[in-house]
Amino acid sequence: MTSLESATQPAADLDSLVVGVLGGTGDQGRGLAYRLAKAGQQVIIGSRTAERAEAAAAELGYGVRGADNAGCARRSDIVIVAVPWDGHAQTLTALRAELAGKIVVDCVNPLGFDKQGAYALKPAEGSAAEQAAALLPESRVTAAFHHLSAVLLQDRELDSIDTDVLVLGDQRAATDLVQALAGKIPGMRGVYAGRLRNAHQVEALVANLISVNRRYKAHAGLRITDV
Amino acid sequence: MTSLESATQPAADLDSLVVGVLGGTGDQGRGLAYRLAKAGQQVIIGSRTAERAEAAAAELGYGVRGADNAGCARRSDIVIVAVPWDGHAQTLTALRAELAGKIVVDCVNPLGFDKQGAYALKPAEGSAAEQAAALLPESRVTAAFHHLSAVLLQDRELDSIDTDVLVLGDQRAATDLVQALAGKIPGMRGVYAGRLRNAHQVEALVANLISVNRRYKAHAGLRITDV
Repeated sequence: MTSLESATQPAADLDSLVVGVLGGTGDQGRGLAYRLAKAGQQVIIGSRTAERAEAAAAELGYGVRGADNAGCARRSDIVIVAVPWDGHAQTLTALRAELAGKIVVDCVNPLGFDKQGAYALKPAEGSAAEQAAALLPESRVTAAFHHLSAVLLQDRELDSIDTDVLVLGDQRAATDLVQALAGKIPGMRGVYAGRLRNAHQVEALVANLISVNRRYKAHAGLRITDV
Repeated sequence: MTSLESATQPAADLDSLVVGVLGGTGDQGRGLAYRLAKAGQQVIIGSRTAERAEAAAAELGYGVRGADNAGCARRSDIVIVAVPWDGHAQTLTALRAELAGKIVVDCVNPLGFDKQGAYALKPAEGSAAEQAAALLPESRVTAAFHHLSAVLLQDRELDSIDTDVLVLGDQRAATDLVQALAGKIPGMRGVYAGRLRNAHQVEALVANLISVNRRYKAHAGLRITDV
């Protein structure tokens, strides 16, 4: 039994698993890597070049390591996909072998921007997460961490981030594990929010949160009530 | 100046406006009518036949009146559309004249259901709200009240409902008024959440809340943090 198999049964020894963050030198990826490493998780950030990833990792501290994307995927048990939407399909296609057997957590929000602000793009597969699932048939694809403010994630004066993390996926063991991962970050709670076929609206809702942020000068997040 | 024009400038005398609820004999419509009337708003519920609407209105109390859909639309300043999605286009097309000049609040969630639960439908116009806007060029169309549990709305032992109401629309005066209307219901807060072009994901998110409700045996609602 690998560490991943044992973990996805009781989701108990999450602490022993390595979390990779593809796109880990971007704002969202860097912020997630920081929060997870600070919470005690082993984290490797991936970038196109190992040098860039290592430099960003050194800045983050908390034992974060850097590698090129392939190395990051290979050495991780759970791989968060935090790359820009326009490189999403290409990045995942190139990493199919390295991501086989891994839990993949897609947090990409396909958005367009114009004078009126942000709007949702609709991927042919339905959502970024469903595109990931189509490109990675041997991985267990989930979707989560869409609605986190990169500003708050990276704010070192902030110890806790008040938000729920909606977790989607078609395999209970995988969504349970990702919920537990989200719950390690102080203030966050992982909430199961449906199958991958309902990922589009969760990704697209970021366009609405951007409108909220503009109107209220906020870094809006979501809480689910009555849960 | 009509009462509507004066109200949409400072949104001050909301209390004097009449709120109509099309589909007011359904669970969602009945629940909204009850909450708004209890909060002191004048409410008329509409149904296909006046008799049915009047009977439901009498049950609700708090001065709620009933009328056929055309009468409801004609006598109201703000009209909430709470009809089933499959009658949405037909109902609105028939009421185009009665709804001219009114603020229309679409709260319809186009969903399909199968063995795996609920999933989002994508209207050709983009969303139910955008369909309403296309069919009602002389109305001011907003979208709101999508995520409310009909069970909680109708629970007479519950004095307060802990949730935010996302309000979307392209005209500030109209969204301000609908936010104020939502804010009249104890526990609720109206939060501006973008233009109508970003309504689809707000409507579709109900599929995710249904998954949340199944998993956690809850009546889930949303709160926006940091606002």
